[in-house]
Amino acid sequence: MKKKLKLGLFGFGCVGQGLYHVLHETHGIKAEIKKICVKNKTKSRPIDESFFTYQKEEILNDPEIDVVVELIDDANAAFEIVKTSLEHGKAVVTANKKMLAEHLEEIYQLQKKHNRPVLYEGSVCGSIPILRNLEEYYDNDLLQSIEGIFNGSTNYILTKVFEEGKNYNDALKQAQELGFAESDPSLDVKAFDPKYKLTIAILHTFGVFVNPEDVINIGIDKISDADLNYAKVNGYTIKLLAQAHRIGGKVYGFVAPQYIESTNPLASVRNEFNAVQLQGAFAEKQLFIGKGAGSYPTGSAVLSDISALTYDYQYEYKKIFQERQVAFSNEASANVIVSFQGTGTVTAQDFEQFEEVSENNGFSFLKGTLTLEKLRELSANPEVSIILSPENKITPLKAVQEKSLVYA
Amino acid sequence: MKKKLKLGLFGFGCVGQGLYHVLHETHGIKAEIKKICVKNKTKSRPIDESFFTYQKEEILNDPEIDVVVELIDDANAAFEIVKTSLEHGKAVVTANKKMLAEHLEEIYQLQKKHNRPVLYEGSVCGSIPILRNLEEYYDNDLLQSIEGIFNGSTNYILTKVFEEGKNYNDALKQAQELGFAESDPSLDVKAFDPKYKLTIAILHTFGVFVNPEDVINIGIDKISDADLNYAKVNGYTIKLLAQAHRIGGKVYGFVAPQYIESTNPLASVRNEFNAVQLQGAFAEKQLFIGKGAGSYPTGSAVLSDISALTYDYQYEYKKIFQERQVAFSNEASANVIVSFQGTGTVTAQDFEQFEEVSENNGFSFLKGTLTLEKLRELSANPEVSIILSPENKITPLKAVQEKSLVYA
Repeated sequence: MKKKLKLGLFGFGCVGQGLYHVLHETHGIKAEIKKICVKNKTKSRPIDESFFTYQKEEILNDPEIDVVVELIDDANAAFEIVKTSLEHGKAVVTANKKMLAEHLEEIYQLQKKHNRPVLYEGSVCGSIPILRNLEEYYDNDLLQSIEGIFNGSTNYILTKVFEEGKNYNDALKQAQELGFAESDPSLDVKAFDPKYKLTIAILHTFGVFVNPEDVINIGIDKISDADLNYAKVNGYTIKLLAQAHRIGGKVYGFVAPQYIESTNPLASVRNEFNAVQLQGAFAEKQLFIGKGAGSYPTGSAVLSDISALTYDYQYEYKKIFQERQVAFSNEASANVIVSFQGTGTVTAQDFEQFEEVSENNGFSFLKGTLTLEKLRELSANPEVSIILSPENKITPLKAVQEKSLVYA
Repeated sequence: MKKKLKLGLFGFGCVGQGLYHVLHETHGIKAEIKKICVKNKTKSRPIDESFFTYQKEEILNDPEIDVVVELIDDANAAFEIVKTSLEHGKAVVTANKKMLAEHLEEIYQLQKKHNRPVLYEGSVCGSIPILRNLEEYYDNDLLQSIEGIFNGSTNYILTKVFEEGKNYNDALKQAQELGFAESDPSLDVKAFDPKYKLTIAILHTFGVFVNPEDVINIGIDKISDADLNYAKVNGYTIKLLAQAHRIGGKVYGFVAPQYIESTNPLASVRNEFNAVQLQGAFAEKQLFIGKGAGSYPTGSAVLSDISALTYDYQYEYKKIFQERQVAFSNEASANVIVSFQGTGTVTAQDFEQFEEVSENNGFSFLKGTLTLEKLRELSANPEVSIILSPENKITPLKAVQEKSLVYA
């Protein structure tokens, strides 16, 4: 019934070793690792020397290897491996979100051309089976939004900072030591990592290819003690949220920190846990919570993809073919609270709709709606912290204009 | 690519009408309702008269109808419909948990015999796609436990009683008016409904057929003000939990109310929401939260099954064939807190391991571990309220005996 698959691994870091252990303690999955290609010849390896090679051709040209499992850091090298593997008739499993986000359309076309699947459940929110659910279960056109906590290490940092009053840098360091922060922490704290994941999720939620450069990402690196205090005084916590909403024929999506009320189920998603919330027309809110980072959660997602390959599973990308086509757009505004030291750095004129200004301990807090383009512009200013309001609403620009005409 | 399916519906109550609306507002699902069989000829119907019939043969003998959607209350009549539909070469979608739980093995065999699928995602936890995830994503043998809030109306009642200090009967009445309590409320409050769901979930989690009569169900009907007070004083809430654990070669499962600490993610699952938590060896805890009752959530689950039939999906029941076979057993003990008015109704001698007794306002509270059989026996006593401890642990009896020998 099930095929026995032979795997060739690229990379043997945290996720690779997690996969090795998961695979060896799981019965019933008909797959075995034949070869592991690594770069560093001098590093000591926790498993037998005979598994390793330093020549990628030893895997790519081996006709016995059915599946290439790509688990390296370098996105460009990873894409070459994926491409060559497909050309050589091999299926691919990868968790490389940067590579995927930057090459989604090519990878989609390459799968069609070579009739071999690429699976990548581990690339979005670790152990949460969100892509498979979007593909298989939510395969109609009724999804209205996807949002959630897509990055485990920043959530860990925010949890520690909020609950234990930990210093920001200490919390980051601890997250890295625990193995669920990227080796380049700016990918996490500047929200590139969740942006790549959101780009992938948007394809499987709405059937739209997006250039990750078009997706605005605002990190948690400029959150100040004044912001933390603002949150505490108002009974909020702060979470880094990735979100995309279908409104009319458009999809609006971005990543930014947001004040979260304590009754919001996302408030209770702590430490390295991730969460994905889908809003459908009828099923209403559906929430998935699970570990989003770390060797075992990602390793188990990679394993589920390998298992799916034993019965020839492939993504059908059904949403690309749905009746109501949608396009990605940044022509919307969002409700935000902007803060900075002193006064005047940002003014009421920067807002689409300005609500109020307050001052606290030498910091100004301005509240109102900003266009996404203005959001992007202000986020480049190292003095300015931008956090979405708890009542976060995305409003298409035209509607805003019509509305202001009505009230004029 | 996708087939256009013709549906025959049995029943047009809350879920049937929900399905009708969901189907008519969803594009891209290639299915249409041809006929609806109902019992009551005099009831006025919200859609055109021509859809309806009062003869089941008009659906069962119609060769044009590909899929029978069974949405009636009567479990025996429902099973006959399922059986006849399969014999007539039709696929079946049903959400009838009682019928399913009582006939799972027969339905499994009938599917094989007639080579037609029966899908029933809507039968367990409404809109949460738990069966599909157990079948497709968690298809290895690593799952250790499944537990959660499987009944929306009791969760609604408990939420209202706890958060709004509502009277128990008022809360029940309101739940029924809102349309997510069964017409026979004892199915909910005496925990038969979640027991049936757990029986189904155990098959798809562990590959074991269980007779629902073997699964102990303790409802929320004997929870007293003294228990509510005990919970509040200790910072707990009370939830009705269904749970099944694989320990060694055995599966232990039952439904009972449990004290829940506020840091437990299940504590924040409120009102008619359901939650399912899977514990795997590597993915660790995975939590799914969604609306578990009501016409639209169940209707959308039924719709997802119909959609899956357009590409010939069927359950493979992979866990039945896994290497490590397991058997259902009640030979375990659980940590509980037993309460009753006065003294002496239950004594320390009833416990496997007795911890402590306390008294409050004329009520006795006894804490310790009870065997599941003792649990079943005591639950029949109308004077006794049994609630699992927050540190709920299921211990196989043998281990308990060995342990007590060690400490003897």
